[in-house]
Amino acid sequence: MGITDMQEAFYYRECAAAHENSPLGLHYAMFLPTINKQATPEQKKKWLPLAENYKMIGTYAQTELGHGTFIRGLETTATYDPKTKEFILDSPTLTSKKYWPGCLGKTSNHCVVMAQLYTQGKSHGPHMFMVQIRSMEDHSVLPGIEVGVIGNKFGYGTNDNGFLSFDKLRIPRENMLMRYSQVGRIPRENMLMRYSQVSRIPRENMLMRYSQVHEDGTYVKPQNAKLAYGSMVLIRSSIVSDAARGLAQACVISIRYSAVRRQTEAYPGGEEPQILDYQTQQYRLFPLLASAYSLQLAGKYVFNTYLEVNDQIEKGNLESMPELHALSAGLKAFSTYEASAGIEVCRICCGGHGYSQASGLPKIYVDVVPGCTYEGENTVMMLQTARYLMKCYSRAKQGQKLPGFVQYIGQNLNKKSCMSEEVALGCLVMAYEHRAARLVEAAAMRMQSLIQGGKKQHEAWNGSSVQLFWAAKAHCHLFCVKNFVDAIQAKSLSSKTVTVMKSVCQLYGVHGILENLGEFMQDGFFSGEQVGYLQRKMLALFENIRPNAVALVDAFDYPDMVLGSCLGRYDGQVYQALYDYAKSAPMNQTEIHSTYYKHLKPLINPETTSDAMQFAKL
Amino acid sequence: MGITDMQEAFYYRECAAAHENSPLGLHYAMFLPTINKQATPEQKKKWLPLAENYKMIGTYAQTELGHGTFIRGLETTATYDPKTKEFILDSPTLTSKKYWPGCLGKTSNHCVVMAQLYTQGKSHGPHMFMVQIRSMEDHSVLPGIEVGVIGNKFGYGTNDNGFLSFDKLRIPRENMLMRYSQVGRIPRENMLMRYSQVSRIPRENMLMRYSQVHEDGTYVKPQNAKLAYGSMVLIRSSIVSDAARGLAQACVISIRYSAVRRQTEAYPGGEEPQILDYQTQQYRLFPLLASAYSLQLAGKYVFNTYLEVNDQIEKGNLESMPELHALSAGLKAFSTYEASAGIEVCRICCGGHGYSQASGLPKIYVDVVPGCTYEGENTVMMLQTARYLMKCYSRAKQGQKLPGFVQYIGQNLNKKSCMSEEVALGCLVMAYEHRAARLVEAAAMRMQSLIQGGKKQHEAWNGSSVQLFWAAKAHCHLFCVKNFVDAIQAKSLSSKTVTVMKSVCQLYGVHGILENLGEFMQDGFFSGEQVGYLQRKMLALFENIRPNAVALVDAFDYPDMVLGSCLGRYDGQVYQALYDYAKSAPMNQTEIHSTYYKHLKPLINPETTSDAMQFAKL
Repeated sequence: MGITDMQEAFYYRECAAAHENSPLGLHYAMFLPTINKQATPEQKKKWLPLAENYKMIGTYAQTELGHGTFIRGLETTATYDPKTKEFILDSPTLTSKKYWPGCLGKTSNHCVVMAQLYTQGKSHGPHMFMVQIRSMEDHSVLPGIEVGVIGNKFGYGTNDNGFLSFDKLRIPRENMLMRYSQVGRIPRENMLMRYSQVSRIPRENMLMRYSQVHEDGTYVKPQNAKLAYGSMVLIRSSIVSDAARGLAQACVISIRYSAVRRQTEAYPGGEEPQILDYQTQQYRLFPLLASAYSLQLAGKYVFNTYLEVNDQIEKGNLESMPELHALSAGLKAFSTYEASAGIEVCRICCGGHGYSQASGLPKIYVDVVPGCTYEGENTVMMLQTARYLMKCYSRAKQGQKLPGFVQYIGQNLNKKSCMSEEVALGCLVMAYEHRAARLVEAAAMRMQSLIQGGKKQHEAWNGSSVQLFWAAKAHCHLFCVKNFVDAIQAKSLSSKTVTVMKSVCQLYGVHGILENLGEFMQDGFFSGEQVGYLQRKMLALFENIRPNAVALVDAFDYPDMVLGSCLGRYDGQVYQALYDYAKSAPMNQTEIHSTYYKHLKPLINPETTSDAMQFAKL
Repeated sequence: MGITDMQEAFYYRECAAAHENSPLGLHYAMFLPTINKQATPEQKKKWLPLAENYKMIGTYAQTELGHGTFIRGLETTATYDPKTKEFILDSPTLTSKKYWPGCLGKTSNHCVVMAQLYTQGKSHGPHMFMVQIRSMEDHSVLPGIEVGVIGNKFGYGTNDNGFLSFDKLRIPRENMLMRYSQVGRIPRENMLMRYSQVSRIPRENMLMRYSQVHEDGTYVKPQNAKLAYGSMVLIRSSIVSDAARGLAQACVISIRYSAVRRQTEAYPGGEEPQILDYQTQQYRLFPLLASAYSLQLAGKYVFNTYLEVNDQIEKGNLESMPELHALSAGLKAFSTYEASAGIEVCRICCGGHGYSQASGLPKIYVDVVPGCTYEGENTVMMLQTARYLMKCYSRAKQGQKLPGFVQYIGQNLNKKSCMSEEVALGCLVMAYEHRAARLVEAAAMRMQSLIQGGKKQHEAWNGSSVQLFWAAKAHCHLFCVKNFVDAIQAKSLSSKTVTVMKSVCQLYGVHGILENLGEFMQDGFFSGEQVGYLQRKMLALFENIRPNAVALVDAFDYPDMVLGSCLGRYDGQVYQALYDYAKSAPMNQTEIHSTYYKHLKPLINPETTSDAMQFAKL
């Protein structure tokens, strides 16, 4: 097709197979970039031409049957034998088998394997090794390797997620990926992007670390391993954008359909209203529409800030990375939870038809929801954020100035909300700041009291972790509100756009308070009267947003082909589309299904069948 | 197999195919009972032997492409022609096509069709008609009929949900189901029961209504149509039990697995703890365990009360039916929402492995979640409950005494919670009563103020429906708490059981308050200090419940075969089971998948393939 630019190729693939995970997805997204980043010049020279020309088709294997988020717990071993200058890869236990890597079961003939490095009798933690698993001639599985698919999943049906184990497999020393590795940045085309806008960054602009095993087995450890945070931030920001996109698409489908579907006469003899006119439907869908906007803005912010922070790091300034890393971890969890739950609400808001794959919604859900567990389990992510917040709290109490967005921590909590009937944006932000500040302090106090009560540090941490989770969630929620408010106050927007988007932004803030009201009321920050303002404002905002609701989802600009939904069609011809969908089902291509002869005929005409078939009656 | 009892046959089928919806499910659950209840003696004599011997295989078709919960909106017509003494069945519009009925697309040769009855130029609303759709000789589709499957769904893969339309199909007058119909009760074996305990009721003990079209076209309308509430109550109580069972099974799987899985050393060099020891995991799972118990008890209560109320109805006392009907509608919605969301939390709590079908959890979710929309869309159900609550409020304000459980409505709201550090069960119930009473009053006040502001009744209803929804939800939640408290105070329980179950019950109550805290605080009912009691109590209850957690799910007594989960196995051998699951996947039965030759070989060895195949590279 003459497409040479990786980004262009990515978009092309996305359009050609908008709804399917490519079984070569990880070849592009992980295997090639890992060679580019982690391999020595000699390794690159050997592997890149093969990988770029699909002689080597590869993936990346980290997760094991018994080990996920905690990478140091991996059990696969790579033991260096200086006599033969080889590594011996082994899966010593059942739980050490690789399990889940995408594109592994049937597609890949190579694999970058994360294994515990042992040399000179010592463990040096997880490192990467290039392992050939299938013949490049005939695709047969090589000796010492066991590989296959893991079987059916909730979704990702077009991806051959696999398992893999090694029986003392020897690979040359040169197969350890030990180049000056480029970690701080990964190329833009590695992001799993669909319709997200990403500006270009130069690929050669990379940061370095170092990790080698010499021929005699001497291990040289990496420098500045913390810089690896950069790629985690980037991946997590892409997950935030993915989650936002999924929720946005679900909103498009559900809101468009709600403008087509009519249900239940409002009064005897009256016309059945569009279901979007029901206040309860607005209550379920409009806050999700607001969330979709908010999460998209959050994803963009994290990505752009990542670029800025990287510039600073190049100038030797690492100060902003911990804040961004903590924010991206929490936002990954916050966004995938919110989006997953929201997509299901959108689906259920389509009534029975939402349950049909014709709606496109089940597919969106099963694509987004694994984001709650992959690339770091969400609770662990939230607690990473909480750990940073606790550090900030401690610094604030010592009188140190906190950087950027976390300056709210440690603020004076003896105050009341300024909320009035108008629901000013500033009062919304202040409310979220107050709640987050209070929950950070409450978690810190809980920690402190458990330690004073004699608990060890890790016991106190675990005994406070529910409150730490609340604090981290409040921090992320505050970020989303504040970032949304900042975005609509940007000078580039027209006043008409601001008018519409201000309602959406207000709804995001108001609904979030009402859904978490106790956290805003426990210390008397809000009065009952102020809560009444918020409740009435929410209902008024539904009426504001209703005339623009369809336009607000049209504005996401997803073509019908990308939505893949009979219910979310731009032209509104949902019933014809559902009927056509049914007609095209494979089972409808014959009038009588073959199972009739096998199962039904013996029931309907038992005289024509043997006694044994009578069994089928039960 | 010699099984003649329908109930026994039901259990046998459930065990033989524990995880699949039978394509004959609606033949048993709807078609046979409908003939039994709605057909004349002559019709029964003709149809029952055929249906019981699988000559006629049937289903029930009500829902249409454009019409679901609002039955009066159905568009399929049955117009009586007195000249030929026939009904003409017709699907006059695209939206009138039947869509969704189970077992319809490929399996059934007959169908009970709900259609708008027209006779002598007048419409008489939806009635039932027996329609043959396929030949009983060769299963071919009959003239005037279009029928097929609706295509892929989120779940229910073994059920041929179908579409059906009629082109002026003539059927004899005798095919209208117009016996003295038996509505007040439906036979016990019609309940979709798995592991629920149901006592027997005599099948002949039925209530009657009447609906006929005479040969000349005269329509005779039914008496006491409101008695049809009875079968709705029964179906909804079975959905509550289904939802509870799904959530309970998910808890079994997730809690057992959390006692096997270990993750992340708690301190450097420490053992990786069982993930069930993490407070955050307890926070996610233990309240769901409590919910599962609560919803099971609620389902049982509604069913048993249904039996009692039916006895009263036989004695001419209809007083209790509206309360029970309202409760069952709301509980159907409350339980399916709670259970669906909870099952997904259980799944996500299993980390990545929860996403594998090997976990059994995706299947449980897709089985339970359609309960949010079938048999009455949940929002509509909640608003039915709210309508009853508004009537009660109005009666209470007029000084009338309210029946049974709704006596809390209209109570004095000027009071404070009695909650202390001990969290007495009585104070929990009082809190839920107060919240429900306040939200019922708030919804009524909102209605009133909108009407006073000039809105019409139906506009005021819609403009208050979010608050009506809140009130109905609070009512159902109160019921579940109160019913749970009553159950553990039953004298039949041993003191050891009460000790354990009291913690579970307290957790259910405490967690529900903290999750909905604003609704308990808005009027100052709880002080901030009391909220602190509840938060500390919740964390303390986690520690109480932890040693019993596995026993509490074992107590549900689901055999491994019913759970169908590698993660939820009784013996805890989850990793071996996951590995075996993978090994048995069909794709692993060959070393090289056939798609290698079609797609991968041309990539890996392009020289052996034509130019056209190069296209596949993209």
